[in-house]
Amino acid sequence: MPGGTDQTLRPFLWRAERMYPDVEIVSRTHDGIERYDYAEFGGRVARLANALDEAGISDDARVGTFCWNHHRHFETYFGVPDSGRQLHTINPLLPDEHIQFIVENASDELLFVDPSLLEKLAGAADPDAFDSVRQFVVMGETVPETDLDATDYESFIAGRSDEYDWPTLSEDRPAGMCYTSGTTGKPKGVEYTQQMLWSHTMATITPQGLGLDDTDVVMPVVPMFHVNAWGMPFTATAAGAKHVYPGPSPDPADLAHLIEEEGVTITAGVPTVWLGLLEYMTDNEVDLSSLEQVIIGGSAAPESVVRRFDELGVDVLHAWGMTEMSPIGSVARLKDGMDEWDDTDRYAKRAKQGLMVPGLEFKVIDEGGDEVDWDGEEFGELWVRGPWVTTEYFERPEANAEDFEDGWLKTGDVVSVDPDGYIEIVDRAKDVIKSGGEWISSVELENALMAHDDVNEATVVGVPHEKWQERPVAFVVAGEERDSLKDELIDLVAEDYPKWWVPDDVLFIDEVPKTATGKFSKKDLREEYSDESLVAGKAPEEAAPESD
Amino acid sequence: MPGGTDQTLRPFLWRAERMYPDVEIVSRTHDGIERYDYAEFGGRVARLANALDEAGISDDARVGTFCWNHHRHFETYFGVPDSGRQLHTINPLLPDEHIQFIVENASDELLFVDPSLLEKLAGAADPDAFDSVRQFVVMGETVPETDLDATDYESFIAGRSDEYDWPTLSEDRPAGMCYTSGTTGKPKGVEYTQQMLWSHTMATITPQGLGLDDTDVVMPVVPMFHVNAWGMPFTATAAGAKHVYPGPSPDPADLAHLIEEEGVTITAGVPTVWLGLLEYMTDNEVDLSSLEQVIIGGSAAPESVVRRFDELGVDVLHAWGMTEMSPIGSVARLKDGMDEWDDTDRYAKRAKQGLMVPGLEFKVIDEGGDEVDWDGEEFGELWVRGPWVTTEYFERPEANAEDFEDGWLKTGDVVSVDPDGYIEIVDRAKDVIKSGGEWISSVELENALMAHDDVNEATVVGVPHEKWQERPVAFVVAGEERDSLKDELIDLVAEDYPKWWVPDDVLFIDEVPKTATGKFSKKDLREEYSDESLVAGKAPEEAAPESD
Repeated sequence: MPGGTDQTLRPFLWRAERMYPDVEIVSRTHDGIERYDYAEFGGRVARLANALDEAGISDDARVGTFCWNHHRHFETYFGVPDSGRQLHTINPLLPDEHIQFIVENASDELLFVDPSLLEKLAGAADPDAFDSVRQFVVMGETVPETDLDATDYESFIAGRSDEYDWPTLSEDRPAGMCYTSGTTGKPKGVEYTQQMLWSHTMATITPQGLGLDDTDVVMPVVPMFHVNAWGMPFTATAAGAKHVYPGPSPDPADLAHLIEEEGVTITAGVPTVWLGLLEYMTDNEVDLSSLEQVIIGGSAAPESVVRRFDELGVDVLHAWGMTEMSPIGSVARLKDGMDEWDDTDRYAKRAKQGLMVPGLEFKVIDEGGDEVDWDGEEFGELWVRGPWVTTEYFERPEANAEDFEDGWLKTGDVVSVDPDGYIEIVDRAKDVIKSGGEWISSVELENALMAHDDVNEATVVGVPHEKWQERPVAFVVAGEERDSLKDELIDLVAEDYPKWWVPDDVLFIDEVPKTATGKFSKKDLREEYSDESLVAGKAPEEAAPESD
Repeated sequence: MPGGTDQTLRPFLWRAERMYPDVEIVSRTHDGIERYDYAEFGGRVARLANALDEAGISDDARVGTFCWNHHRHFETYFGVPDSGRQLHTINPLLPDEHIQFIVENASDELLFVDPSLLEKLAGAADPDAFDSVRQFVVMGETVPETDLDATDYESFIAGRSDEYDWPTLSEDRPAGMCYTSGTTGKPKGVEYTQQMLWSHTMATITPQGLGLDDTDVVMPVVPMFHVNAWGMPFTATAAGAKHVYPGPSPDPADLAHLIEEEGVTITAGVPTVWLGLLEYMTDNEVDLSSLEQVIIGGSAAPESVVRRFDELGVDVLHAWGMTEMSPIGSVARLKDGMDEWDDTDRYAKRAKQGLMVPGLEFKVIDEGGDEVDWDGEEFGELWVRGPWVTTEYFERPEANAEDFEDGWLKTGDVVSVDPDGYIEIVDRAKDVIKSGGEWISSVELENALMAHDDVNEATVVGVPHEKWQERPVAFVVAGEERDSLKDELIDLVAEDYPKWWVPDDVLFIDEVPKTATGKFSKKDLREEYSDESLVAGKAPEEAAPESD
């Protein structure tokens, strides 16, 4: 049968090690800054693979990591999958019961764990969990006091050969794994095959993705347990770029220092990180002259942040993706000619989730099952497919039946697409309010409410309604609770939105309930208030669009 | 089984059509300049696919093209493979018997042919060849006088729907085909699967490849029958770039005009094309200000050409590849920091074949079967493997046994690799001279001889030798034939090379015999002179390195 050889991560390691032996990898660890080059990295990756073999870890084992961003964690990114095994990165911020479930579900044979996370892991391991785990390896030169029977990483790889005869693997072989936590139910595992990681790496190295080359210095602030730090350790290696790993819990001063000292050109993380850095810069002189791009994902960055970075000569790029997508799907780059638009239009474009990178396809399906027009107004659920988009969850047939169809992933994000092809997230599918056969965006209503000076937090949920199926109800944390505030808020929404979008009620609460990962828990609100008869009673006659 | 969806060309067409509907495709045809946009292109591609169906062409048929670079040829690049068929681009410059063999071997069901090439094709079709061909379609609005039973392209696609339900294809499905002509034997077919073309497109869009984005205007001068114009029609589409096709036999004035009028940013072709353009510019004012990159392949560009383009602000990039590699393997980009080197070192680096792009692996094997050091001196045969490198020839088991091993393609190029990882072609494997168990580069000797003012052409071949296996003999076309010239040439070589590299003889000839594609035919020279006993008689005592 015609065809090329299988797509695996091996050529990326080979290329960096052979063509860029002197390029550096810099790592902030518990013990300070460490640095070495790709030549030494390659040798240590080989030693790690030999150590896994010699420790009797199966040649297709899942190997878990419970670590921050540093060079040893990076070594597992190639040592584990290139030797045929599967790298399972675990989020140490999850509740113990999730960690127990994840390790057991994945049957991890070995766990790499950071010294500062050892206690957390030991807590989750107790008393009978982690039956599959045969070895704990602590990421350092010593093992802190612990109940776990652990060895340290440097002893684990010491004395091994720094050469390894890397096997020829099938591109279908599982190479990575990451669990995604929904707001309900158990975390779902996503397996990344060699081909998925290869494809994602090639796609994100393009100018439509991150556009990396060997002049870049790449610092992933996004955790390496968070979908492989958005794939950046692989992409930077394929490009022969310098890596900078900011280690455990970097504060703004740490990040500023690394950017200045190491000449970081591109970095990535959630908006909070960059807000922190900018705040730090109000009192401290920081030289960001090397920095070219800040990739923001997870949620959208406020326009003020984007503008401030612009003034500093740094391009902020929104990216959108999912654990199920390895993760990058779209990047909000301006198209040819758009940089000559006026400020307002440019910032509006850059605030969107952006253009799907080459190699993926998407469609947007409304409640009737039809594709929406690309007019920037109609919205529906975003479906995505492509070589680095998973087509199933690990051992979750019921979720698979619900979330996938004909190779398409139903993302659960509700989006509009403008005529230029830019995606904008309007809501999460489970949060969108279905009123009279049409959809109301809870996110838009929340933004409208939060524009009022006296509103600190606002969340809008759909509550069951006999006639209209669901109706919006707003839950507001107000700075100053006044009798008139409710009416003011109702009027505020009514000014800009159709009558049927206006919440049936506004309820004042002391605090919005949050999920384990800090997000608003709409599910809790919905449950708490679903029986409130007052809500159903207040639905207006026009609780659906006129066309209905 | 985990994994993403299959890698096919469909998402590239979809992306351009939906996200860049207004971006232009410009085409110089027999009838003048035509232009339209991706929206119209997409509609015409769908009409083509519908026409193929309705003409009864099998859904996995091979479809041949016998065409120059223009928009209709570009339409076949997606219409044929996206509908499940296989695009077989045929080189119209081949001798009739090769064309007959190729069409028969591929069993093409339909042939698209340019008006200006119709006579050539009809000549090759006569009398009983092309049994498999059910339809000839002429690329235009009319059919010129011909013996072939042909229809014109516009009638062929007229009245068809401009929508098509593109099938979901396996990534293993053959999507393209191109024959490579060796200097001996029949052409060998290389099939490109959907996955190979997808991988090549993703790799060449990267900054390490061509680095294309939607600000680019791409003009492939390299013929579209020549390994898909080095893949540029696919790559430019994936990037949402504007295309410019220079049509049949463009002269330097045509190219200059297209660059100026269409704002071409990147173009590609063999050195002769660019020599012609520069010569044209000595007498004509040409504005190259839009042009950023000229990709040169096929053979190395003289340094004078590279320097002249540098002065004009245009970056000349050497690329190396093969029909077997879809075709791009390496690009001679400077690494970070090298642009600060002095002129001599920079030009020396850029004259090499360059750095292998991410996703491929190579090794260089000497005659003893060992890998050579990357010291820029040792040389051996280049072996390459990767997702867009074929692992077999079409129906040629004897060639497969010889040219492939464990997924590696033995390229037949003899190269050295410098410590920076840059490949430099030293010779073709079949032309390298094997003397006493060591290799002598015929190319190096030829360059040394051509440095003499009185030498117009020089070629060096290995002729059989009883003791040393082979010995070098030079064949020289001299401007002024002098008795002393032979001695001068021998001395010239002896100055810079070991004694055993010095040719045993220098023979003066009127003309170097050429192959059908214009290359020196060393095979003819070897055959003609292999019996000359004078050669064997003149071998020196040290016809091998001292270490031997």
